[in-house]
Amino acid sequence: MPRYKLVVEYDGTPFAGWQRQENGRSVQQAVEEAIARFAGHPVRVQCAGRTDAGVHATGQVIHVDLAREWRPDQVRDAANAHLRPEPVAILSAEAVRDGFNARGSAVSRHYLYRILNRRAPPALDIRRVWHVPWALDANLMADAAGRLLGRHDFTTFRAAECQATSPLRTLDRLDVAREGDEIRVHASARSFLHHQVRSMVGTLGLAGSGRWSVEDVRAALEARDRSRCGPTAPACGLCFVRVDYPA
Amino acid sequence: MPRYKLVVEYDGTPFAGWQRQENGRSVQQAVEEAIARFAGHPVRVQCAGRTDAGVHATGQVIHVDLAREWRPDQVRDAANAHLRPEPVAILSAEAVRDGFNARGSAVSRHYLYRILNRRAPPALDIRRVWHVPWALDANLMADAAGRLLGRHDFTTFRAAECQATSPLRTLDRLDVAREGDEIRVHASARSFLHHQVRSMVGTLGLAGSGRWSVEDVRAALEARDRSRCGPTAPACGLCFVRVDYPA
Repeated sequence: MPRYKLVVEYDGTPFAGWQRQENGRSVQQAVEEAIARFAGHPVRVQCAGRTDAGVHATGQVIHVDLAREWRPDQVRDAANAHLRPEPVAILSAEAVRDGFNARGSAVSRHYLYRILNRRAPPALDIRRVWHVPWALDANLMADAAGRLLGRHDFTTFRAAECQATSPLRTLDRLDVAREGDEIRVHASARSFLHHQVRSMVGTLGLAGSGRWSVEDVRAALEARDRSRCGPTAPACGLCFVRVDYPA
Repeated sequence: MPRYKLVVEYDGTPFAGWQRQENGRSVQQAVEEAIARFAGHPVRVQCAGRTDAGVHATGQVIHVDLAREWRPDQVRDAANAHLRPEPVAILSAEAVRDGFNARGSAVSRHYLYRILNRRAPPALDIRRVWHVPWALDANLMADAAGRLLGRHDFTTFRAAECQATSPLRTLDRLDVAREGDEIRVHASARSFLHHQVRSMVGTLGLAGSGRWSVEDVRAALEARDRSRCGPTAPACGLCFVRVDYPA
């Protein structure tokens, strides 16, 4: 069966997360139903990274097998027509070799976490940002973020329900930069543990407000103890922005 | 009575525009009710620029007179507390001299118009952008925009219901630039006619798609004839971003 790679954008707000489940509509279900309607047969899609309820994506990647060949542009346009009016869009589609796997072939995943750091609540970016009304020092957060880079046991920053076999991960990028009222955290790794980005961002928030020192953040990492983690930052600030594959 | 200048952000989607009216809730009504609730007396606010239904703002400016003095931060925070859960936020408040007038004292107004130019519809920026699925050449649009700069009779780009006494305006900036899938149009002038920005952007869209030449845009301006205008671009792509006042 011909295999297609699709890049997907979605607003996570109305969904119970990426993955199909009993309680509530998932992005996966919306996408599979839309594809099935034009393809004429049931489909299962595989994603590069499952996102939690409320988490957004501008560059989620999936693969899907169709019974016959379609022009990639037809796959994109037909899926989008059937997705309306749900806040999910297929940005692009391309035919890929059978061995391609959206999850298994991925070599790097990129997330953006947005913090709105001002007194006034968001009017335009409600459910797109974490609103932090007290002052955060982005430079302190960037210093603390640097202590988390590299290959570590990230048990401290891992949800209790994480299903990964190992807590070892290599964090390639954790950049913190202020742009006006917004603090943007860019995180990149081959793969992340469940809640890892949100756990790290919540902990960086403690450093940014001065409640924790940069060394406290490093000590929390080295403790390999979930109880040493800061608060998990809210889902709505997180966006899955890109997945890289071998050329 | 002490006068305060407030900077206001809002999502225009649920409102019938800035101005109070019989049919539907306005941003003005939401703001006046919130201020009245903490001030303890009815208020009337004056804005720098009335926006249409669906138009957003990140930097609308208003002034309001209160019966007694408040710390500006209290005005901001109390208004925001009473605005919840409406998508309107007071970003800042400051005490100003009596002669300050949000509308009359303004020396420059700045708008941003966002076009999402790709095949796929927006999932995250629904009601924030004008979705144009056919190809637009931003360079052609920028060329055409250059022909509109300066002091002109903008009758062609003026709504029939515009109440301004003169159609003469000086357009100081009309920049068009592509950033990925998005085309951003920045427009600045001391003041604009009703629907002027949306009328210009809709007309630039004709140039960007190649249906009109750059010269056609200039000819439409010189015709001073509303029937020569391109389609008015949708309200949802427009955002009122800043107002300048003398130092």
